Amino acid sequence: MADLVAPLRAALDGPYADARASARRLLTETGTLTDPTLSLDEQRSRTRDAVLALASSDVPAAGFAKAHGGTGDIGASLVGFEMLVYADVSLMVKAGVQWGLFGGAIENLGTARHHNEHLADVISGDLLGCFAMTETGHGSDVQSIETTATYDVASGEIVVHSPSPSARKDYIGGAAHDATMAAVFAQLVTGGPGEEPTSRGVHCVLVPIRDADGRDLPGVTTSDCGVKGGLNGVDNGRIVFDQVRVPRSNLLDQYATVAEDGTYTSPIDNPNRRFFTMLGTLIRGRVSIAGASGAASRQALAIAVRYALKRRQFAAPGAAADEDGGEILLMDYRTHQRRLLPALARSYALQTAQNELVTTLARIQEAGADADPREQRELEALAAGLKAYASWHASATIQQCREACGGAGYLAANRLTTLKADTDVFTTFEGDNTVLMQLVGKELLTGYADEVRGLDPVGMVSFAVSNAAEVVLERTAVAPLVARLRDAARREGDEPDLLDRGTQLALLTDREEHLLETLARRMQAARKASGADAFAAVNSAQDHLVHLGRAHVERVVLEAFAAAVAEVEDDTVRTVLDAVCDLYAVSVVEDDKAWFLEHRRLSVGRAKNATVVVNELCERLRPYAADLVDAFGIPEHLLDVEMLG
Amino acid sequence: MADLVAPLRAALDGPYADARASARRLLTETGTLTDPTLSLDEQRSRTRDAVLALASSDVPAAGFAKAHGGTGDIGASLVGFEMLVYADVSLMVKAGVQWGLFGGAIENLGTARHHNEHLADVISGDLLGCFAMTETGHGSDVQSIETTATYDVASGEIVVHSPSPSARKDYIGGAAHDATMAAVFAQLVTGGPGEEPTSRGVHCVLVPIRDADGRDLPGVTTSDCGVKGGLNGVDNGRIVFDQVRVPRSNLLDQYATVAEDGTYTSPIDNPNRRFFTMLGTLIRGRVSIAGASGAASRQALAIAVRYALKRRQFAAPGAAADEDGGEILLMDYRTHQRRLLPALARSYALQTAQNELVTTLARIQEAGADADPREQRELEALAAGLKAYASWHASATIQQCREACGGAGYLAANRLTTLKADTDVFTTFEGDNTVLMQLVGKELLTGYADEVRGLDPVGMVSFAVSNAAEVVLERTAVAPLVARLRDAARREGDEPDLLDRGTQLALLTDREEHLLETLARRMQAARKASGADAFAAVNSAQDHLVHLGRAHVERVVLEAFAAAVAEVEDDTVRTVLDAVCDLYAVSVVEDDKAWFLEHRRLSVGRAKNATVVVNELCERLRPYAADLVDAFGIPEHLLDVEMLG
Repeated sequence: MADLVAPLRAALDGPYADARASARRLLTETGTLTDPTLSLDEQRSRTRDAVLALASSDVPAAGFAKAHGGTGDIGASLVGFEMLVYADVSLMVKAGVQWGLFGGAIENLGTARHHNEHLADVISGDLLGCFAMTETGHGSDVQSIETTATYDVASGEIVVHSPSPSARKDYIGGAAHDATMAAVFAQLVTGGPGEEPTSRGVHCVLVPIRDADGRDLPGVTTSDCGVKGGLNGVDNGRIVFDQVRVPRSNLLDQYATVAEDGTYTSPIDNPNRRFFTMLGTLIRGRVSIAGASGAASRQALAIAVRYALKRRQFAAPGAAADEDGGEILLMDYRTHQRRLLPALARSYALQTAQNELVTTLARIQEAGADADPREQRELEALAAGLKAYASWHASATIQQCREACGGAGYLAANRLTTLKADTDVFTTFEGDNTVLMQLVGKELLTGYADEVRGLDPVGMVSFAVSNAAEVVLERTAVAPLVARLRDAARREGDEPDLLDRGTQLALLTDREEHLLETLARRMQAARKASGADAFAAVNSAQDHLVHLGRAHVERVVLEAFAAAVAEVEDDTVRTVLDAVCDLYAVSVVEDDKAWFLEHRRLSVGRAKNATVVVNELCERLRPYAADLVDAFGIPEHLLDVEMLG
Repeated sequence: MADLVAPLRAALDGPYADARASARRLLTETGTLTDPTLSLDEQRSRTRDAVLALASSDVPAAGFAKAHGGTGDIGASLVGFEMLVYADVSLMVKAGVQWGLFGGAIENLGTARHHNEHLADVISGDLLGCFAMTETGHGSDVQSIETTATYDVASGEIVVHSPSPSARKDYIGGAAHDATMAAVFAQLVTGGPGEEPTSRGVHCVLVPIRDADGRDLPGVTTSDCGVKGGLNGVDNGRIVFDQVRVPRSNLLDQYATVAEDGTYTSPIDNPNRRFFTMLGTLIRGRVSIAGASGAASRQALAIAVRYALKRRQFAAPGAAADEDGGEILLMDYRTHQRRLLPALARSYALQTAQNELVTTLARIQEAGADADPREQRELEALAAGLKAYASWHASATIQQCREACGGAGYLAANRLTTLKADTDVFTTFEGDNTVLMQLVGKELLTGYADEVRGLDPVGMVSFAVSNAAEVVLERTAVAPLVARLRDAARREGDEPDLLDRGTQLALLTDREEHLLETLARRMQAARKASGADAFAAVNSAQDHLVHLGRAHVERVVLEAFAAAVAEVEDDTVRTVLDAVCDLYAVSVVEDDKAWFLEHRRLSVGRAKNATVVVNELCERLRPYAADLVDAFGIPEHLLDVEMLG
């Protein structure tokens, strides 16, 4: 067999081959696996040390613009953070808090004076900060947080305050111990001369919380969230503010300013739009979590597949006792193949989609104020959807990998339980997945409503769906390819051919369009209701909305993967990747088979065939299992766990 | 609303109301939640202390026959162990190792001299033991373990030895630290005068492993499995034997003896049957894990439902800001109801099935040698199936509960992550679930092949299925009820009525019969193949076999629940339980909807209706959510977690 690993890796790395190579070098030089025997304090100080060590690498600076002391390579920054997961998920999260969230808030929501004053220290790690958004009472619904930041004209100060127990900042990474400054999200209250002070919605204010000796500053009370289900290298904590005063200049004022006399001005009049614009600049958090979820899934799969290629159990019926006692490799069992290989295919698909997402993000963020607002909004929806899809994938995949390694999988030294525990919160932080999937669905509905008034309903839907696709793909030369493939969908007699790429694309596009069209009709009906009935109407469509979100993400992921496969020139490599892409597509169809049957998109015969095809693809890919996980390019010492020794 | 909690609890407790009441009292007096801040050593010593404290309760003795110093109340024993989970899963597992596995091996595989010599000390906790079955190389396939126990005629001793690295005993609870004696499973090698010493298959030998000071005895090398994904209160370890000699009398010789001259005799000639008979006596382990999985699921649901009844997020569209700011309770969202309520219904169903299983087990084990071997074998299959089904249910349910509580759910103080981590291994220990589900399917096939030769295929299948049902239910007066309900299955026009109990039973029975019938045909074809083809034929049916196992378990569980509901006399209570049972049945159908469509058991319209019905049942049960979890009767102080305070 020709060497497949290098070209497969090239296909997976896509445009980030250099960034990944450099992250691999860094991990090979400095990365060590989390040590599960450490105490809580030891884990925290080990992670803090690793963050400070990372400060001297290229990774943190890559995330900041050149004008702000960075190197302005967003792709390298995201890929570099993501791959930290292979060593220690806590390190990735703590680094993400410091440079992505805290530093990102200062860079994106602040202006020159904040950049000049803080960013150099943020990049170097001399100033450790935290991102104080979530409160005990409000997480998913950030717009309803209760902390107030009231401008006091007399002193020229902003007074930050927690008015109730549920206003307490909660689960804040770094707040328990290490952070000396917090980027605090609060309801800004101010008014100009003769104006009643009014709430202006959520804004972000920099608030020092600890002195150099780690003591809470006056009015600030921090506490510790204690042991968590994982990520115990991150010191999550709580912050309560009792009338804490900071200078007016501590308001991060990119999108709104408060004059000395209290006058509030913002370039964005609509408070709702202002809020979502500010939040939108923080999109990298979700993109990072999607990436980290992918990395964790790949590492778990690499470990479980290698174990399945080593471990034998049960003799074949009537087998001669050869040197292995006639025992069968786990990887040769159908149930085992079905546990691991569809998840492996999905991991491949997700990595190509993540490459697209990062590329689009970099392009839009580099465009800055010139970016198309609609494109920005749709990018946000896609980031939300991929974050939810990838983190659920990680949770399910790592769990399968753990079970597929039996008792050995349960030992912490074999990494799988640690990976599961550390990534578990990905499904709910940076936005609860169920809420995020609804957000994706709502964005599709908005596109439908905003853009195409006057078209007939069916035309409207097609327009909205194909339009959303274009946003991600239009500048990557993928759109024509996908359209061409889809239009050439092959049928056998009256039946779609599940192994035809065009058919796969058409099936997923059609499902999304149908879900959107029927949801739009339900919502139209719901709009006529009011009060409790309005809630009931929207509420009863929640599962429909989540299904639409998922269908959208699955279609976009398939398009990204199909495009990546089509770009591979070597026939042998493309044939293998083609089968991986088939396995992704057909297992997506199989998972939602009832829908395709109920909506007469598949006949009974073809639906049964989907299961047969998944089984056949597993068998076909079985000989490539080792190569497929080697292609992930995870540094070998980070896969060197006890049970593989 | 009349008090529903007490009668709902009575229905759930079933025949074990007294045993559960007494276990609740014990937990109320002595049970304290696991402390997630403890170090590994502290967790272990805390759990050891709790096991020793438990020794002075009634629980351990209940599991042993009166003749052996116990009180002979198997039901009370199993229920008592199960409920320890509410406080500390490690405690339940360590107690299960000491009294269920180690003590159970001595009682069930040993004879009077072993009972007299050890059982009093086992019950009192003066002798702490371990159960050394699994090896590094063999877990699911116990028959292939490598450790040898060779009888040496010259000395009259048995020599226990680990011939290879993969023969190392592994993951053995108690072996790292506390156990001073091991029940060692090994290939017994012996021969009488003039006979070549031969392997007689797996037997169990008592081997002292540590002295009173905790030092390994000569020839024994123990080591520590270290930190695990959970259950860190249990000191799992490894044991390597280097020609360790024990007296011949240490062989547990209920099913086979070795005479002084090396002659081997057993009342069971067939070595395979002997092996499975010996293993069959240890069935209580799997029954305990099924019970513990149920308890853990209930506790997670109780916590998540109470949180959902307290936590509000997002205002209703156009809602007036009342005292809650118009925000909606999580429990009122459809997505949230769908996350928690079908799992709640399944937990109810499982508890009624567990009651049946325990009752049947107690009856058969009390019958001892008089038990019908076929009934015993089918009980084993059901225990295997319920263990797999309940532990997968626990894994999925606790995960959902964690996610449904967001960031708060991720804090260890809120119990959900600890429950998830501690029960995670249930899916693979006491037998890998995927292997166990195949065992269930195989047992159904055996019933089909053994018992009904000569009947036409369809008749054979119906016979086998209804027969398997009878085993569990025949003496509970349930069988006629179930048969009557199924026969009266209601149809609307040509369509099954999903809310009719008879229809639900008929749908699940029919699915099982069809899966069995088609599998039997495939196996018949496979039997004609040989060598690699034979493996391929069997292997390609693995997913079919697992599906059959699951279908069987789901049918049996529904029958148990239906019978428990039918016994409730109060109309109000029965109406609520009826809806819970409907939700279980229809969500089982919904989960496997594609199968029912593919096999034309449901029309497209009725299949869509299954989803509508699940949603409606969730809404109907929403007002009873608090009562339904209160009815679990979990001591309040064990639900008193931070986020509910």
